[in-house]
This record gives sequence, structure tokens and C-alpha cells, in this order.
Amino acid sequence: MLLLKLDERSRRPLFRQIIDQIREKIETHVLLPGEKLSSTRRLAAQLGIHRSTANLAYQELWALGFLDLRPGACPRVRERAVLAGPADRSGSPRPDWQALASRPGNAALRDYFRYYAARPSKDPRAVDFSSLEMDHRLFPLESFRGSLNRALKKYRASLFRYGERAGFTPLRETLARRMQSHGIAVRPQEILVTNGSQQGLDLVCRMFAAPGRSVAVESPTYGHILPLLRFHGLKPIEVPIRPDGLDLARLGRVLKDKRPAFVYSMPTFQNPSGITTSQAHRERLLSLCGEAGIPLLEDGYDEEMKYFGRVVLPIKSMDRRGLVIYCGTFSKILFPGLRLGWVAADAGCIARLTALRTFSELSPSPILQAAVREFCENGAFERHIARMHRVYRKRMAAALQSLRRHIKPEWAEWNEPAGGYLIWLTLKPGPSPDLDWNAVLAPHGVLAFPGYLFYPSISPGPHLRLSISTLDETEIEEGLERLAQALRNIYARRNP
Amino acid sequence: MLLLKLDERSRRPLFRQIIDQIREKIETHVLLPGEKLSSTRRLAAQLGIHRSTANLAYQELWALGFLDLRPGACPRVRERAVLAGPADRSGSPRPDWQALASRPGNAALRDYFRYYAARPSKDPRAVDFSSLEMDHRLFPLESFRGSLNRALKKYRASLFRYGERAGFTPLRETLARRMQSHGIAVRPQEILVTNGSQQGLDLVCRMFAAPGRSVAVESPTYGHILPLLRFHGLKPIEVPIRPDGLDLARLGRVLKDKRPAFVYSMPTFQNPSGITTSQAHRERLLSLCGEAGIPLLEDGYDEEMKYFGRVVLPIKSMDRRGLVIYCGTFSKILFPGLRLGWVAADAGCIARLTALRTFSELSPSPILQAAVREFCENGAFERHIARMHRVYRKRMAAALQSLRRHIKPEWAEWNEPAGGYLIWLTLKPGPSPDLDWNAVLAPHGVLAFPGYLFYPSISPGPHLRLSISTLDETEIEEGLERLAQALRNIYARRNP
Repeated sequence: MLLLKLDERSRRPLFRQIIDQIREKIETHVLLPGEKLSSTRRLAAQLGIHRSTANLAYQELWALGFLDLRPGACPRVRERAVLAGPADRSGSPRPDWQALASRPGNAALRDYFRYYAARPSKDPRAVDFSSLEMDHRLFPLESFRGSLNRALKKYRASLFRYGERAGFTPLRETLARRMQSHGIAVRPQEILVTNGSQQGLDLVCRMFAAPGRSVAVESPTYGHILPLLRFHGLKPIEVPIRPDGLDLARLGRVLKDKRPAFVYSMPTFQNPSGITTSQAHRERLLSLCGEAGIPLLEDGYDEEMKYFGRVVLPIKSMDRRGLVIYCGTFSKILFPGLRLGWVAADAGCIARLTALRTFSELSPSPILQAAVREFCENGAFERHIARMHRVYRKRMAAALQSLRRHIKPEWAEWNEPAGGYLIWLTLKPGPSPDLDWNAVLAPHGVLAFPGYLFYPSISPGPHLRLSISTLDETEIEEGLERLAQALRNIYARRNP
Repeated sequence: MLLLKLDERSRRPLFRQIIDQIREKIETHVLLPGEKLSSTRRLAAQLGIHRSTANLAYQELWALGFLDLRPGACPRVRERAVLAGPADRSGSPRPDWQALASRPGNAALRDYFRYYAARPSKDPRAVDFSSLEMDHRLFPLESFRGSLNRALKKYRASLFRYGERAGFTPLRETLARRMQSHGIAVRPQEILVTNGSQQGLDLVCRMFAAPGRSVAVESPTYGHILPLLRFHGLKPIEVPIRPDGLDLARLGRVLKDKRPAFVYSMPTFQNPSGITTSQAHRERLLSLCGEAGIPLLEDGYDEEMKYFGRVVLPIKSMDRRGLVIYCGTFSKILFPGLRLGWVAADAGCIARLTALRTFSELSPSPILQAAVREFCENGAFERHIARMHRVYRKRMAAALQSLRRHIKPEWAEWNEPAGGYLIWLTLKPGPSPDLDWNAVLAPHGVLAFPGYLFYPSISPGPHLRLSISTLDETEIEEGLERLAQALRNIYARRNP
């Protein structure tokens, strides 16, 4: 008979205590293969527990491979095959994955480590201008939890089954209406829900990738597009950004001479430069793409954060020919942790992108999509956007004022963004081009991304990208004071 | 002054009613560009509503591009740019996406439409043996909702931020323990959480894909791996399955002569054949791969559904060299709608797969991962598995009994699976190889996948894959009776 001691007051459930103790006896050879254990009925009586608890323990031990269970017979200890334990592995050599993997996979990996190695390490006492996450203190958690629970009650089991391949239809309807509110006339079947806008970019790359193909990108551009392009074997062709947006004369020549697969542009609060282009610039860019018959991938990552001045509508809103593929996301306005974005494009393009996504994950989870749909439809999303506008209108105004107060014109200049989270500091000549900006800033307790990370090849001069997305007015003021100290050190040394 | 009529009893919120009515007046030119509207204070007074409601409506109209808002001034109707409306699109030609996309993208699309076109259309009155979804009547919805709400309260805002790139660490700890319960000794850092196991397969393909490379696959094999391989330019090399599993003599020659990038195998309840290989077969397969130094991708899609007889441990449990890449999923045991699976592999391999996933979506959503972690840790998952075993032990026994009763040995033979959901019917010679099985079965009110879908090239003879995953005993009995009628028609015609 088995001697087990159960502790009723332990936080470990009774069935787990039984499992632990029987397992230990088998592993220490107190119980030997073939040995019989008590029936569930007897075990329950012996231990004064419910029979279902005994049964649960035996089922788990069976699943763990420790017991043989047969209907009507007592459980027996199993013969176990020899297993590879952690100890086995320490001695034997590991596979050489670099040799086993293919060249594109390995090349992508180098980019990945280069990118993540360049991230400033996060000292919790530092003021962090590097993160483009949202300020989690502004998350509408309670109201979203309500929406989630309403969605669970409303749609029940259907949310837990495989979802629709292009995304949860009620959410696509909501997104179509939101797109209409930005002047973009799309129907739900012209929308694909993605795992963040990053997956939208990936799918567009998948659709167009082929050896020898290129993509026209802004220079500087979004850091995470570069390893993605390289992984897909797409060569980035850099087109410089001027204060009013992409250099369109240059772009025109690139479209004609190089015939890139598509043009990638962020016309609103461009990451990293913060530039928002004018209506006229957008019209010219669209007509250049239209004349060349080359699709335009418009990244509207921060479309909702237009809190200053006049609304400029997305390029997609003027797209009569259906050549613009628009990527949107909830990550910079609601929660990045939802991993929900979307692509709005011509139905033929959406059908292809949906097929490509189906290969890689069948369909997206409907659960959070349904919650977001509820959140949008009951007005909570509009209220949240209004609050974000109020908050960031103040924060950005404070940041621009602090910059003027602390940063001398001899050190740097910057744009005044029309919204969003980003300020792009163009530093004046002086510091060595090889200067490690992380090393310069960290001792002063301030973090920011150095500009070279955003250039496909060589950066034309030192820049810092300042994101105010996680900071309030006090933190911004403190951080810019610290930044000023760091810059003073650099420039004072040069011009004493 | 603006004339608006609000309906207090309408289900449409007041601020939406204001938006609708002002918008309509602008669109019908009752209000003209430049025209002044009441201040929020005045509008609130006029309509007898709270000022914040008036403000919300104006903010939204501003976001929609209908109004200019300036602090301290009354709102004015905006000049709007000319937009592309749905009407614009009907006349103009659409882009030729096939010509714009690349060859691999287009080839993949053909496979996609071939696959989805071959799916039997779902008549709600038909008994559906085609779906390998889970029976949603068995979903533990209430208990999962409890776990989700506990997770939301416990982790709060952190679940809504960007998550860890390899997956939520507490879930990876839980998965490592579950893997240990199947004899697989892995640490959390040897696990990558994926969007269903399909994403695991996709990432492994991404890691190894290069022009000219091949992959050894079982024939027949999982239908969704085939377009994925083709999209990645990986040529499938077919190795036939015999009643005891992969033909190892043939595999040995393939490994030597063709040096595939990896071997893809499903040793337990193979989809579609339902075959579970023996311990000895697994050891031989592993040693073949080990000698050749070629990774083995083990798909354990239904590992938890071993409800008959002896447990056979996964191949990964014997993997001393770290060459086995194991894919698991919650889709066939908990909920497919979670889209949660995982890869367990050598840490070096996991680092590479994590990098590749980061390119395409940065990181997975932590929210549902945390809920599953809670669900597993409080014993609910074990209880659910025990219930699934009880239910399917009965259902599968009933299915095998009904088959013996209704299907004559002159029509077909089948295996007796050790668990899972699948029975593979090998039909006797007689029917034309071109027979459209959907057209044969549908009139009898029964659906099943024809076997050719699971073969990379030519199917060696007619098969039907019967899945009992969505059916209870009564439905199974009814469905197999209908199937027998359909087969009787076919075979009676040939042998009257």
C-alpha cells in the first residue's frame, strides 16, 4: 500500500500533491515498473479525498507516462523508454543552425541582432525618449475589459473557433467606417485584419518579393522595415526626405529607371523625422505612382494622433485607381499588446494578401477583434481618442517649449510636428560621426535612438529621434534638461 | 443657428445623432465651407445636453475632416479636398495584381484557390466528417472566461503593452512543464509561442527556405503544409507511409541522395492517415536523421488526445542531439480560436525562429497567452483533457463499431486509431479515379475530405478522411449510415 501524506492547508492542490509523491517514488525506484497501485476508490478512501481527485491524479500520471491505466484494473507503474534529459545535453555538441539554415535566414538574423543590440539599455531611472510605445498610464483598461466581456457574452463559442481568414467581419465593418472617417471609401471586403501593421508590411513584402526586385523607401525610414525587406530579398532604394517630404524629383527618376516593386511612404508624422506632408505633396506623389503604375504602400501608423491644426487626409483617400495599399494599426492609439492592425486596399490585392496570411497562420484569433469592435461601437474609442488628443496636445507643446528653453541653436535644430509623438533633432556639425550616442546620453540619465538606425545605408549626419509617447510634461522637461547637459558637454569641448 | 433634433429614446448615442445630422447638412450643402457653428457651450444649451457631449461630437466631426476647430473660436465647416468615393472606382480599371506581384506570390495563390475550392460546401443538414475543428459544444467557455478575467486583474496594463518576442514567459514556463509531462526535457528559453502551430511550420520554412532546397514529407501529409512549402520554394520529396509509419528504407535513401533541408513528420494520429508509430519506429527515424545531421520537424498537433492504450512518447523526448524541432498547439484540445501553438527546440534554433517572427509581427499578444497560463495552472486544463478523453474514447469506439456495422469489407478498409479524431478509409478498387467524391457524398447528406488533397502529387488510390472531431455518437452513427448508402450506390453499380 502506498504511503502518501497530503497537506490540506497547502496552496498546492491535493491532486498535484498525489502526483508529486507518486512520481517521486517512481523516480527514486521505491515503486518499480509493473507494480500495482490502489484503485481510485481505494486511494480515495485511504486518503479521505473525493474519488474524482484520485482519478485526476492518476489520469495526469498516465499522461505523464508514469502509469498504465486499463478499465477495470488497478493502475500499474509503466516501463519507461530511456529519455533524453537536460543532463544528456550538456555534453553532446549542439546542431550548427547557421550551417543548417539558408543564407537569407542567416542574413536576416544578423540584421536582427544589429538592430536589437543598438537599443539603449533601459535604466529605470533614465528619461526614455527612445520608446515609441504608448504611455500605459493612459490605457483605458477598465472600459476595454468591459468591452471584452460584452463580446464574450455576445458571440460566445463562435469567438473560440477558427475565425474568418481576412478578419472578424464586424470589426472589418467598423474599420471600414473608421477609414471613411479619414476620407477613405472602402468596403469591409477591402480590409484585411493583421497582427499589428508589421504583419501588413510583411504580407505586402511576401506578395512582391522576388530575387532582384527593389523597393523605394524614404531615407530615413521606419527601422523595422529594413531587415524585413532584406529578409525578403528586396533591395531598398533610398529616396531622401526633405522638410516637405519625399524628394519627388528623385522619386520620379527612381520609378522610371529602377521600376521598384512598390514605394513605401509614411506621409503623416513620418517615423523617424516626424514630418507630415501637405495635400499638394500627397497629390503629386500619388500621381507619380499612378503614371508609373507602381503601387504605393502608405503606412498610417499614427493616423489618429492629428491633434494640432488642420487635418490632412491620407493619400489613400484620393486613390481613384486602387494603387494605394494602406496599413493602419491600433498600436499607437489604443494598445500595442492587442497586435491588431489592418490593410485597406483594392479587393484583388486584399484577396492575395489574405491567401498569403492563410499559409502562415490559417486565420487570426477572433477574440480580441470582437472586443475592439465592441470598444469602437459604443463610443469608447472616440472618447479615448479625444482624451489622447487633449493629453498629447499639452505634452507636445510642453516638449517644444522645453526644447527652445534648453537646447541651443548652435547644437541642434528640429521640426515642429503637427501631431504624433516624434521630434527629430538634427545635430549641428561638430561631434565625431562615430560618436556612440548611447554612451553619451546614458550617463546623463536620458535615452534616445541615434538617427543612423533609420537609414538603409549611410546617415548624412548625426540625428536623435525623440519620442514623447511614454512621458508626461514633468518627465519631458526633466529629460530635455538632461539632454541639454549631455549636448553642452559635447559642444563645449569643441567650442570652448 | 443649427436645427438639430435629438431622440432621447433612440439606441443611437446623442453625440452620434449630432454627428449624423451635421454631417448630412454638410454633405447636402445646407452648411457651406467656412460657415460658423455654435460653440460647444451654446450647442449644449440649445439641445439641453451636457457640454462634453457637444464637444465629443465636434471632435469627431473634426477627425472626420468636416470641421475646423480652433481654441477660443467657433467651429467652422472645412473646405474638403476632392476624395475618391466608391463611385469613382466603378468606372476606372483596377490594377492587375497578378502582373504586379511576383511569381512565388502568384504560384502560392493558385494553390490556395485549389485547396479552398476543393472544400466540400457545408450543408447544415449534412453530417460533417470533413472538419478537423473541435466540437464547440465541449468548449470550457465559463472556466476560460474566469481565467481570462483573473489574468487581466493580475497582470493589468502589462498585458496590453508589446509582449516578449518569444512569448509570455509564464506561459513558456507552463509549456515547458507540459512538455516535460510528455517526456520532453526543455527549458522555457527553448520554447517559442506561435500563432497556432501553422506559424511554427511557416517559421521553420522561413528559416530553411532557399532556391533549390527540398523537404522530405510523408505521403499523404497535412494538407496545409503543401502550399506553404511551395510558397517558400521548398520542393516536397514524398516518402510513403506504410501501416507502421514512414517507409524508413526509402527515407534513408532520400536523406542520403537528396539531402533535404528537413524531414516533416507527424508520428501521432498522423493527419490524414490516423497512424501512430511505435517506440521502435520513432527511435529508428530519429537515428536516421541524426546520422544524416538533418533536422526533424515533429508535428505533435494532437499530442494530448491519447485516450486509448499505451502512451507513446514524442520523438523529441529521445532527442539527445537537439535536432528535433517540435510543434505543438492548443487548437485540437482547447480552442482553435486562440491561435496559440508553440515550438520546442534547441535554444539556438529558437533564437533564429524568434528573430524571423519578429520581422513579421514584432511580438505576439500577451493577453490570451496569460489567460491560457491561468487556465493551465489552476488545474482547469487537466480537467478539460480528462473530459475530452472520456468523451472521445466513447465517440471513437462508437465510430469504429458503426463502421464495422455499416461499411462492407468489399468497399473499404480502415485503421483503428490509438486516439485523436481521424479514421482513414482506404477504398477498394472500382470507382473511377476521377470520381468527384464531394458530388457523390453530398446528396446523401454526408461530407468528408477526399484523400487526394493530402498527396503532394498523385494519390495512389481513392481514400476518404473521416474526422469525428465535431460529432457525437448519434451523429456519427447517422453519418456512417449515410456514407454506407453512398458507397453502396457506387459499388453496387460496379458489382451488381
